Amino acid sequence: MLVDRSDRAAVGRIEGLGDLSHASLTYSPDERFAFVFGRDGGLTKVDMLTRTVVARTLQAGNSIGGAISDDGRLVAVSNYEPGGVKVFDAGTLDLVADLPMPGKTIGLVDVPGRRFAWTVWDTGEVFLGDFSGAEPVVTMLGNAGKNPFDAVLTDDAHTYLVGLFGEKGVTAFDLWDDSPEPQKFLTDYGKTGEDMPVYKMPHLQGWAFTEGQYALPAVGRHALLWVDRDSRETVATTEMHGQPVFVIAQPASPYVWVNFATPLNDTVQVVDSRSHDVVATLTPGKAILHMEFAPRGAEVWISSRDDNKVLIYDTRTREKVAEFPAEAPSGIFFTARAHQTGL
Amino acid sequence: MLVDRSDRAAVGRIEGLGDLSHASLTYSPDERFAFVFGRDGGLTKVDMLTRTVVARTLQAGNSIGGAISDDGRLVAVSNYEPGGVKVFDAGTLDLVADLPMPGKTIGLVDVPGRRFAWTVWDTGEVFLGDFSGAEPVVTMLGNAGKNPFDAVLTDDAHTYLVGLFGEKGVTAFDLWDDSPEPQKFLTDYGKTGEDMPVYKMPHLQGWAFTEGQYALPAVGRHALLWVDRDSRETVATTEMHGQPVFVIAQPASPYVWVNFATPLNDTVQVVDSRSHDVVATLTPGKAILHMEFAPRGAEVWISSRDDNKVLIYDTRTREKVAEFPAEAPSGIFFTARAHQTGL
Repeated sequence: MLVDRSDRAAVGRIEGLGDLSHASLTYSPDERFAFVFGRDGGLTKVDMLTRTVVARTLQAGNSIGGAISDDGRLVAVSNYEPGGVKVFDAGTLDLVADLPMPGKTIGLVDVPGRRFAWTVWDTGEVFLGDFSGAEPVVTMLGNAGKNPFDAVLTDDAHTYLVGLFGEKGVTAFDLWDDSPEPQKFLTDYGKTGEDMPVYKMPHLQGWAFTEGQYALPAVGRHALLWVDRDSRETVATTEMHGQPVFVIAQPASPYVWVNFATPLNDTVQVVDSRSHDVVATLTPGKAILHMEFAPRGAEVWISSRDDNKVLIYDTRTREKVAEFPAEAPSGIFFTARAHQTGL
Repeated sequence: MLVDRSDRAAVGRIEGLGDLSHASLTYSPDERFAFVFGRDGGLTKVDMLTRTVVARTLQAGNSIGGAISDDGRLVAVSNYEPGGVKVFDAGTLDLVADLPMPGKTIGLVDVPGRRFAWTVWDTGEVFLGDFSGAEPVVTMLGNAGKNPFDAVLTDDAHTYLVGLFGEKGVTAFDLWDDSPEPQKFLTDYGKTGEDMPVYKMPHLQGWAFTEGQYALPAVGRHALLWVDRDSRETVATTEMHGQPVFVIAQPASPYVWVNFATPLNDTVQVVDSRSHDVVATLTPGKAILHMEFAPRGAEVWISSRDDNKVLIYDTRTREKVAEFPAEAPSGIFFTARAHQTGL
């Protein structure tokens, strides 16, 4: 569904994008084209102006996401089946590079200088691919640890953070360093209690960076972990309503907003990054899957899948200001993402 | 001149905007409209799609800049003559509020929650105006010091920094605090040497925030001052080619780019915010007035006024990749600014 953020309304519908359960997309630098990564392995290029599919390739059996290079020339896709990374020309979707990897790839992000970073679930290896020259140069940066489930790049493109599922912890790589050493932290959180089954893997693209801290979801716990960005020491833990899924910083504010894994996914909580206290608990609707902020933070759009609605909240009053019908809405992606590194 | 960033070319020219010497502009949230603040006191609304002036008001004798509210509804203008702040409806340019002040206003920025902050040159007073209710609520936050020449908001909207000309120093206000206390720092830089005459007042909109630091231009000195963002202690001084004018962080990188006051304004220097060393000195052309980065930092556009050219440099190779003719170019403003708080 195509929406007009100013009008707070749906303006069109685009079909033929394949399996969009847990899909994601990214935008060209001019915000005109969307590149949609489907779970059927489809990569689809959509023209937002004409609302048509202008190119589509079924490039794998199952893909988990992708990214566009900083100059807008290349689109890279992270594949589960058969694994590996494929890189396409953003204009034509012609294959530019096929990079087999020893397993499923996750956490693929764009890195400045026509580069991409990604991680292999099966082996824990982290790679940096440089596509600025005639031939791609792929470098193994190091091993993150056991079964990395997602990774994220800080907004300054300085640190690539890899979350681990097979062991406790997060591993950081300094991408401003030519030969970064893996730096593991948060290796012992929650070791005094028993972990719960993980109903839904948390997302790291939503990891919040605020007040010199990382706000991280505790895997298998009803908790948010706060880590100092420089020292990587844990500074606080916030007990939450459920298992965090997305932890997203409200732009230009001290607040992070959190949604939760099923069956507690009717709730959204707001946490103050200074006090680490929950300052608001909202129950916007059934199956709250995603939240997307207006780029300067004035409002947040919330998808309520099982209510078939998109809800719009004012972030200052935290009251609902509008809503509109949508069929089982999930991810919301405003075009201003085109201008953010690592998204 | 209207440019297409993807095509690296001029696509049109818009006339009738008044005196554009030292002018600035801001964009509506949908990037369609530009609001141009002219030195003749003119506020002009331009439709970028049709390339026409859709509204214009000569609202003062001399204005220095302005901002648009986070929801895109209000445009505020900072005036030198007769001083004060005026606020307009962004749709019609009808006057919404006329706020006389005890002097010239400078450093006007948008603050989340339909608010604006500004400072009075003559008295040093800092004000916060809240326009979210039926009537504006204007609060005096405190006194910054003697003759504040410009002010800037950090990217997280946390700290409003006011640069002083009548005395040494910078004054910070915590806008996340309901009753912020003015916090003065950098009060004794350069006290062992003699200051030079100031050929051109540095701009604070270009103050860079990187690696947990502020990179600040030293008024009347050939130096850049590095201040720790948390402690506000000076951590380093970088000797520069001339008096810095704009100090701009290259997005998603450790680098800041600096241009200089006349007569040394043929040069641009690049400084690494980790080592505080100058890592590159470029001489792109005559009278380098402004630099604007592609939002994800892949390239920088540089206006070379006396060469009548706009130059485009790749930020990774730091080599010129394109140029095009432009008549005495000065400020360059990409539409992605629409999504940044405080710009």
